[in-house]
Amino acid sequence: MERSIGEERIFSGRILSLERHTVTLQDGSVAFREVVRHPGAVAIVAFADKQLLLVRQFRFPVQKYMLEIPAGKLDAGEKPEDCARRELLEETGYIPRFLHKLTTIETSPGFSDEIIHIYVAEVEKSQDPCPDEGEFVEPVLVDSKEVLEMINGGQITDSKTLSGILLAFAGRESDEYD
Amino acid sequence: MERSIGEERIFSGRILSLERHTVTLQDGSVAFREVVRHPGAVAIVAFADKQLLLVRQFRFPVQKYMLEIPAGKLDAGEKPEDCARRELLEETGYIPRFLHKLTTIETSPGFSDEIIHIYVAEVEKSQDPCPDEGEFVEPVLVDSKEVLEMINGGQITDSKTLSGILLAFAGRESDEYD
Repeated sequence: MERSIGEERIFSGRILSLERHTVTLQDGSVAFREVVRHPGAVAIVAFADKQLLLVRQFRFPVQKYMLEIPAGKLDAGEKPEDCARRELLEETGYIPRFLHKLTTIETSPGFSDEIIHIYVAEVEKSQDPCPDEGEFVEPVLVDSKEVLEMINGGQITDSKTLSGILLAFAGRESDEYD
Repeated sequence: MERSIGEERIFSGRILSLERHTVTLQDGSVAFREVVRHPGAVAIVAFADKQLLLVRQFRFPVQKYMLEIPAGKLDAGEKPEDCARRELLEETGYIPRFLHKLTTIETSPGFSDEIIHIYVAEVEKSQDPCPDEGEFVEPVLVDSKEVLEMINGGQITDSKTLSGILLAFAGRESDEYD
């Protein structure tokens, strides 16, 4: 257990804020903790028949295009399941026939409070994507069998995407993908 | 592709720094990107016979104890494999008989450049743990078969831990754990 005995607000931005805490450690000594606050997010492992629905987008912090499961930040007061349906529709134009909570992960608990609620869904096309202004996200359908090869080959490396897909696959009968 | 046309250094701390970039988007419009810079880290899926070697520690940003694979930040100029051996020894007192690179993940590519190099290892006890000052980490051995139940039960939720363990399991024959 570490207890905060002093808090400094360093920055408050559009998607995150930063605090530095003075804390007492287990042995009573004093240390500092830099903490990135994030509103939390949802992500969806979306199966469209025997394909997985992914999204491709440029990620500025890592300076590359990444292939990820559809995801997005929670709006203030928004229920995670509502957020999952909203983000799926905005980014891909698909809607869930079936939506099931898989787990909630912490992405970087050493320096951030970001959590991501991960759902697994069976989805179907409903309309064209309608991304937020300034959001450039390309839906990509990948055969379920190919996804594991892409993970092993290092083409899928995002932590929520690996956690979600591998957990969904572990919970399904392997013959569903044959 | 998003191009930085202006950069503001907001904070430089002990484990992270924060920048705000002005960027041009795909359609030529202008937006802001908040970026948390991190030195990068390693993590090890460590098998001790039929058990997995995990560590339990309090994570201040999420205010709880978490069960994770052994991990730690890269020192300046340090090779990831050297860092893996060092962190494993410091946190657990174990050394690898065998160490193999599994993948490199991005933990939160929407707002951070943090990457984690994940290794899988067969390990054996060498000495007592020797954690850094102010680091309180408890090694925990868990039966490999039990780990999946803990993941499904929401007792293991850290993204690098889920990614690493599930990927290591997907690459191994299931009968190795019977």
